[in-house]
Amino acid sequence: MNVQDKRPTTPQSVTTGPIGASRKLYFAPRGREDIRVPVREIALHPSAGDAPLRVYDPSGPYSCADFTPDLAAGLPAARRWLESRAGLEAYDGRAVKPEDNGFVGEDRLVPPCPAPRAIRRAAGSAPATQLEFARAGIVTEEMIYVAHRENLCRERAFAQAAERIEAGEGFGAAVPAFVTPEFVREEIARGRAIIPANINHPEAEPMIIGRNFLVKVNANIGNSAITSSVAEEVEKMVWAIRWGADTVMDLSTGRNIHNIRDWIIRNSPVPIGTVPIYQALEKVGGDATKLDWEVFKDTLIEQAEQGVDYFTIHAGVRLAHVPLTADRVTGIVSRGGSIMARWCLSRHSESFLYERFDEICDIMRRYDVSFSLGDGLRPGCIADANDAAQFAELETLGELTKIAWDKGCQVMIEGPGHVPMHKIKVNMEKQLRDCGEAPFYTLGPLVTDIAPGYDHITSAIGAAMIGWFGTAMLCYVTPKEHLGLPDREDVKTGVITYRIAAHAADLAKGHPAAQERDNAMSRARFDFRWEDQFDIGLDPDTARRYHDETLPKEAHKVAHFCSMCGPKFCSMQITRDLREEAAAIAEREKGFAEKSAEFLEKGAQIYVAE
Amino acid sequence: MNVQDKRPTTPQSVTTGPIGASRKLYFAPRGREDIRVPVREIALHPSAGDAPLRVYDPSGPYSCADFTPDLAAGLPAARRWLESRAGLEAYDGRAVKPEDNGFVGEDRLVPPCPAPRAIRRAAGSAPATQLEFARAGIVTEEMIYVAHRENLCRERAFAQAAERIEAGEGFGAAVPAFVTPEFVREEIARGRAIIPANINHPEAEPMIIGRNFLVKVNANIGNSAITSSVAEEVEKMVWAIRWGADTVMDLSTGRNIHNIRDWIIRNSPVPIGTVPIYQALEKVGGDATKLDWEVFKDTLIEQAEQGVDYFTIHAGVRLAHVPLTADRVTGIVSRGGSIMARWCLSRHSESFLYERFDEICDIMRRYDVSFSLGDGLRPGCIADANDAAQFAELETLGELTKIAWDKGCQVMIEGPGHVPMHKIKVNMEKQLRDCGEAPFYTLGPLVTDIAPGYDHITSAIGAAMIGWFGTAMLCYVTPKEHLGLPDREDVKTGVITYRIAAHAADLAKGHPAAQERDNAMSRARFDFRWEDQFDIGLDPDTARRYHDETLPKEAHKVAHFCSMCGPKFCSMQITRDLREEAAAIAEREKGFAEKSAEFLEKGAQIYVAE
Repeated sequence: MNVQDKRPTTPQSVTTGPIGASRKLYFAPRGREDIRVPVREIALHPSAGDAPLRVYDPSGPYSCADFTPDLAAGLPAARRWLESRAGLEAYDGRAVKPEDNGFVGEDRLVPPCPAPRAIRRAAGSAPATQLEFARAGIVTEEMIYVAHRENLCRERAFAQAAERIEAGEGFGAAVPAFVTPEFVREEIARGRAIIPANINHPEAEPMIIGRNFLVKVNANIGNSAITSSVAEEVEKMVWAIRWGADTVMDLSTGRNIHNIRDWIIRNSPVPIGTVPIYQALEKVGGDATKLDWEVFKDTLIEQAEQGVDYFTIHAGVRLAHVPLTADRVTGIVSRGGSIMARWCLSRHSESFLYERFDEICDIMRRYDVSFSLGDGLRPGCIADANDAAQFAELETLGELTKIAWDKGCQVMIEGPGHVPMHKIKVNMEKQLRDCGEAPFYTLGPLVTDIAPGYDHITSAIGAAMIGWFGTAMLCYVTPKEHLGLPDREDVKTGVITYRIAAHAADLAKGHPAAQERDNAMSRARFDFRWEDQFDIGLDPDTARRYHDETLPKEAHKVAHFCSMCGPKFCSMQITRDLREEAAAIAEREKGFAEKSAEFLEKGAQIYVAE
Repeated sequence: MNVQDKRPTTPQSVTTGPIGASRKLYFAPRGREDIRVPVREIALHPSAGDAPLRVYDPSGPYSCADFTPDLAAGLPAARRWLESRAGLEAYDGRAVKPEDNGFVGEDRLVPPCPAPRAIRRAAGSAPATQLEFARAGIVTEEMIYVAHRENLCRERAFAQAAERIEAGEGFGAAVPAFVTPEFVREEIARGRAIIPANINHPEAEPMIIGRNFLVKVNANIGNSAITSSVAEEVEKMVWAIRWGADTVMDLSTGRNIHNIRDWIIRNSPVPIGTVPIYQALEKVGGDATKLDWEVFKDTLIEQAEQGVDYFTIHAGVRLAHVPLTADRVTGIVSRGGSIMARWCLSRHSESFLYERFDEICDIMRRYDVSFSLGDGLRPGCIADANDAAQFAELETLGELTKIAWDKGCQVMIEGPGHVPMHKIKVNMEKQLRDCGEAPFYTLGPLVTDIAPGYDHITSAIGAAMIGWFGTAMLCYVTPKEHLGLPDREDVKTGVITYRIAAHAADLAKGHPAAQERDNAMSRARFDFRWEDQFDIGLDPDTARRYHDETLPKEAHKVAHFCSMCGPKFCSMQITRDLREEAAAIAEREKGFAEKSAEFLEKGAQIYVAE
């Protein structure tokens, strides 16, 4: 079919092409050519004497050299195996209703994504979710996939793996030297990790969220007030994953959100999360008191059929918790939390999300939509951190986790927010304890309130720390937080800032391969391989630009100094000279190594002229 | 005298004027009108019902509304009391030599700063340094000054002070509820704090560096390759302190550095630090092997007479330590460290800085120049963190600290560098132990190597943590670190990023007044006082600009929502409505507070319709 005809006429403009001097490779486990695990390989200068550096890569086919996206066709399915998975049934699915797109007029309606696909759901009680498979002892293709994906660079670091894990501080984490599919299965079976992978999102490249795996990053996107093209909306996702977002939450509201979400999911190689209560609220005209179970349930099914991989559900905001927020400095700051608080209080009723939680589980299980149990009562400022409302909700989330697990659903738990450094660790400890080690997924936390315009930084400090303590995924914050809507540069800054936090956490936990990238960078620095430094970094473009502002000439890319100190003061060059001198001395005096040892024993005596 | 005649013709252009909606106030302790302690007072909207917020302010007179700088005259002396301090003698001082300005030709010579002043030094063995005064039981004007300065907002927070200190985690710090001059004296006497205050820098507003005081921030500046005007060089300092740098290190090299330093010091209200070995190296043509004690000593006196407040001295780089760096990934990365390593190795001799340390102390004592004992062997990458070379040097710095103290000199200790999160705390602990709690002054540390272009962030994570653990001053890192020379925006970004780290540390330590600013911001957020939010923040200009990019209209500055969620989804507005509803219910049901208590006991029962 010629799907082009149905597409909007504005140009298709998602970003494609390799990131820096890298190429995309896919690896297939032996005998499983249908499982193609992506990796980004950074070429290094021949003088490096190093193998190319392979890095984890959530950017999907968009960063391939030869990929031409066809948004209307959607991405090719990464999970082709779903077509033959037992226990699933194809069915017609729910008809799209006017309210799904915010009652937008025909003239402004964004067309649905025409990519052809079947809608599936679990047919009976046979295992359907990754948790159910794991408990049944079944290793799924998704588990094999993520095991290979997580092992990246570990083969390179294998000799040091045990030592690095030992040298790290994991606060009870059990990061393995090597990740086997069986290890993945065990972690999922005990609820300590999830693979958010709706069976209706075959385009997604499986990834895992859990404290014994690499720390992940989520980026939020939302629709523009006036959508000029679907490509513009899809591009937000493509741009965020290009810089390292492992999942993307679509927080759009208003018109066309059903159809735009369709375009995003069909073209997303990463799991997509949503907050269904936002759309449900739109359907009842924005009045929280009019929400009810029927409209919410209908929204869950609508989004589950589309392929949303995880839902934020604020079922922990109970009626009894609401008065606990009365004396807060900033009250309730979560949108979902305040919607539910208003609902509860206006009706003087217990939350329907809490009361209908079993039914929510039943729906989410059929599609393997993972729970992201929302922290609707998270603190909105330093003053409110770790208060009774926040912790009461967390305890409820622990209770709900067990129910969801019993129902076969995968669960992660959302966390704060605004927390000063000395109150971060207790959040992690309480979450692990109350929620049975279900993965923690935190927003920052911001460690101070005083820097609007810089909250990517205030929050990256908290994010790095809580990631180290055991948080499995970090929700990014952009420089525009508290001030306005992030633009393209803000999204990039937010994602890269959070990649820093996640990587710093991996290093500190003693991840056996994380330091390979740091070491490659450090060797490139010491060798003055400037191009390699740019390419190994998280943002080659910015690094190159900053360098060139001071020393733009190509010749300086191989210069043995940089603009900070200039040739006369270059300490690295001095160290290199030093090593040459030392080597010469060693030659002359038969062995620098022995000399060093003597040095340590006898101090300065040895080299006194004889 | 008409000093204007001697000044360069390029425009004088340092930045002046109030920061946001604030004004500069000076407070004088009762009976001491000569001690005028600056504070920046941020006006809040009348609806706030809050007193204006007072914040610590290192920006000097430049941020006064009515100050017109006269760079040639220099700043008025903040420490007028020095003129009558006993034990000091005025003398002619050393004549400026051609090599002091890098042998610059007459045609390119920047004229000396014509500000008239006397050069002084300690005349005998009577107390001359703050440490000597403190040990003698004498409370100096500088001690009174910093006590008042540090107490900022504590009066406002006095009722909560004990509680906040108790709730914080200070890792052995002893932050007092209220700072008395006697407390300052005691901290200085035991070497746990310093007031870097050369007696030849009367323009400086005293400030204190120590773990029981507010965490401070240093910014580095350096000369441009081609100096267009002295104002341009002075402006770098003025700009850095405007955004919150508590001290400034002048790392200039090459031509005109003596004269430009003069202009900077005469116009600097903050302590100035330098690394004298840089200038000494210039004097011997850039060849480290030609350095000797005489040229170094002469440089110390030259800079001490100018009024430099602290010297980085790399006396811990001993000959025996050099081989310990041989197997490092990035060798020696400190400029001073590599200069001294080359000197030691080329001569096969012990460092002359180490061997002449007593004499260095004698010189520095006479001017009360504080030591910043340099970490010439700090790690330059994650792989080299906490290695034998680094720690061997730190132990030597501990040994030198005791010598300097015996000589009456104030001392702080420089620290790393590049350190993964899990290896940061041991740095702090070892420094406190080995160096007798002398203040630690660290560069970052950067917690990963993989993000060139973002090293203000990689390092702010480490800086916030080590500040919390006990570091007294944080040396900033800009986005250009490892890539190029910072421009004006980079300097601002670096300073503000480090103010975030320092403030986050103060909060976590339980500083009794730090949270006042966070609370003021949070109340402004909850009240939708947008202008107050901008002004309370560290960077009002950027916050305002970010806000206006999405919602530029003035009307939106008082809107009860923001662009992130829009009016329908505003959680803060919902909370406010909620409170109103709750208040109405309380009215109806006689007391919401009791209701809340019942709620907690009985859950959802109470509000079921009767």
